[in-house]
Amino acid sequence: MAKRIIVDAFGGDNAPDEILKGCRMAADELGVEIILTGREDEIRKAAARLEVNISDFEIVDCPDIVTMDDEATDVARRLKNSSMAVGMRLLREGKGDAFASAGNSGAMVAGATLLVKRIKGVKRVGFAPMLPNMNGFFMLCDSGANVECTPAMLEQFGLMGSVYMKKVMDIENPRVCLLNNGTEEHKGTEVHREAYELLKARKDINFVGNMEGRDIPVDGAEVVVCDGFSGNIFLKTYEGVAMALMDKIKGVMTMNLKNKLAAAVVYKDMKALKKSMDYNEYGGAPILGCAKPVFKVHGSAKAKTLKSAIALCAKYAETNIIEEIAAAVAVQNQEEQE
Amino acid sequence: MAKRIIVDAFGGDNAPDEILKGCRMAADELGVEIILTGREDEIRKAAARLEVNISDFEIVDCPDIVTMDDEATDVARRLKNSSMAVGMRLLREGKGDAFASAGNSGAMVAGATLLVKRIKGVKRVGFAPMLPNMNGFFMLCDSGANVECTPAMLEQFGLMGSVYMKKVMDIENPRVCLLNNGTEEHKGTEVHREAYELLKARKDINFVGNMEGRDIPVDGAEVVVCDGFSGNIFLKTYEGVAMALMDKIKGVMTMNLKNKLAAAVVYKDMKALKKSMDYNEYGGAPILGCAKPVFKVHGSAKAKTLKSAIALCAKYAETNIIEEIAAAVAVQNQEEQE
Repeated sequence: MAKRIIVDAFGGDNAPDEILKGCRMAADELGVEIILTGREDEIRKAAARLEVNISDFEIVDCPDIVTMDDEATDVARRLKNSSMAVGMRLLREGKGDAFASAGNSGAMVAGATLLVKRIKGVKRVGFAPMLPNMNGFFMLCDSGANVECTPAMLEQFGLMGSVYMKKVMDIENPRVCLLNNGTEEHKGTEVHREAYELLKARKDINFVGNMEGRDIPVDGAEVVVCDGFSGNIFLKTYEGVAMALMDKIKGVMTMNLKNKLAAAVVYKDMKALKKSMDYNEYGGAPILGCAKPVFKVHGSAKAKTLKSAIALCAKYAETNIIEEIAAAVAVQNQEEQE
Repeated sequence: MAKRIIVDAFGGDNAPDEILKGCRMAADELGVEIILTGREDEIRKAAARLEVNISDFEIVDCPDIVTMDDEATDVARRLKNSSMAVGMRLLREGKGDAFASAGNSGAMVAGATLLVKRIKGVKRVGFAPMLPNMNGFFMLCDSGANVECTPAMLEQFGLMGSVYMKKVMDIENPRVCLLNNGTEEHKGTEVHREAYELLKARKDINFVGNMEGRDIPVDGAEVVVCDGFSGNIFLKTYEGVAMALMDKIKGVMTMNLKNKLAAAVVYKDMKALKKSMDYNEYGGAPILGCAKPVFKVHGSAKAKTLKSAIALCAKYAETNIIEEIAAAVAVQNQEEQE
């Protein structure tokens, strides 16, 4: 049966135009059903202007929009009639199989927790974007939702990330590591040392130990576990250095005519390299630990990225990830109580 | 008067050969006096083999060497007769004006604290390497010596880094920022929020607020303050991404004959770019907060890098940085008690 994907028509920098176009592509190419949330009149006007057929989409009209300036928790209170909150409630009520939005990340995490709710036993949801490395991609969990974490939270991030990478990203036996300031097992704070022990003890994940920021971009694990503070530092440094360096190289390649001519020769290959390093290619971040699939799409996503994200949502909804996490977490919590 | 620099002849990957050559360059070009610590017979044999004149160097013979596998605190106990420990004791006793070693970083920090001692009132020494950004360089303090920090420790890192950048690196009014997971002042943990307030309240530094990992490589502050855990994640991710990306680009540039020919055209300019991104160029890291100048030279340093490091040591010893930090810290501690 076709999966029904609820999409926030007013999330992200390019809403609603690119959202509508991406949904059309997804419906045509992936055979999913689309349920849009947002101001119906604006959606219909935009679709007419863009000449995008939305006749087969269901539209759930709602007046408000969560902006980047709104407080995260507003989504469940002041903005409970926003396209994001309504989409999450529809998901919770079973009107759709997954929810995707390119809107405010903080509000997505708060909404996932407050409106969609967590899987029973999951301590915190994890915000888990995909990042490129030299050989492919990896997941960073948590990348900013939880500034401070307990060891058991980190253990769950490892577990949830591993299940997701296996089932949605088709990585066989994904390697899970703990981001730390050294590879030896005594490294980090007390929280890291305890998390190390918990992760090591799990039979259902392939824990490869501590890993440093230096090794992850080269050939690190497929799941990088960390608290949201370190994860955020890692993520933004990753992005900042790559962007700054690419800018510098562009500077070299355009500094004089001779270099410009050489640049023209390698242009296509350099562009392919840049594309392989672009984490927009991976569509976004699942919010792991929700009772239903919630997916944060990159804020700057255009139609094609949204379509990729919807494909991941559909796959997320087709697998039994949530049941598998629920079962594993139930065992973890039972052991904690013993 | 010529500054007397104590140099560990057995620290780093290229000891003693490159150390001896670098010391010779420093003595000739900078007019400093060199005191070497280490196995005198091996030093003399290496100098003879390399035909490096060391007749004007003082050599303090000692039998042991701190290796990368030694525990940090061994430097003050089991290895108290090592070239590193002896050098630090000579510094403490006033036999030289500064100490430089390319040896084990952890042992350098432990030795700085236990043997050279801290400036009165300094809570912890900070390990503060220089890193390149798009417009020059900046200091990261702390980059790994102190995994967990109090707000007052972070405040001192900001103060000490600022004084050093002003006096040794000739940066007028250096900008100081706090590495955080967002720019808003409420970001981070309780420790970050308190550190923010302390740094903001200081009249003697140019605190520009919180900064994200994304902005620092582009045009960040000249002093980046953080705890050693985040600092280590930042530093190694910085290095890892840059190295991985440069490797990828090398791959593109050598993938076929056409690209190789283009690469030949831009080779010199790309090499200059790579050099500007190489943090070996900045010689190493001062260990801030010691009662005397202690400088960690990069482990892989060759003669030229060592000479640059010795130049910084001499400048460090010529300025009144330590007195200035001592005075500022005394005020801070007085205020804390009030």
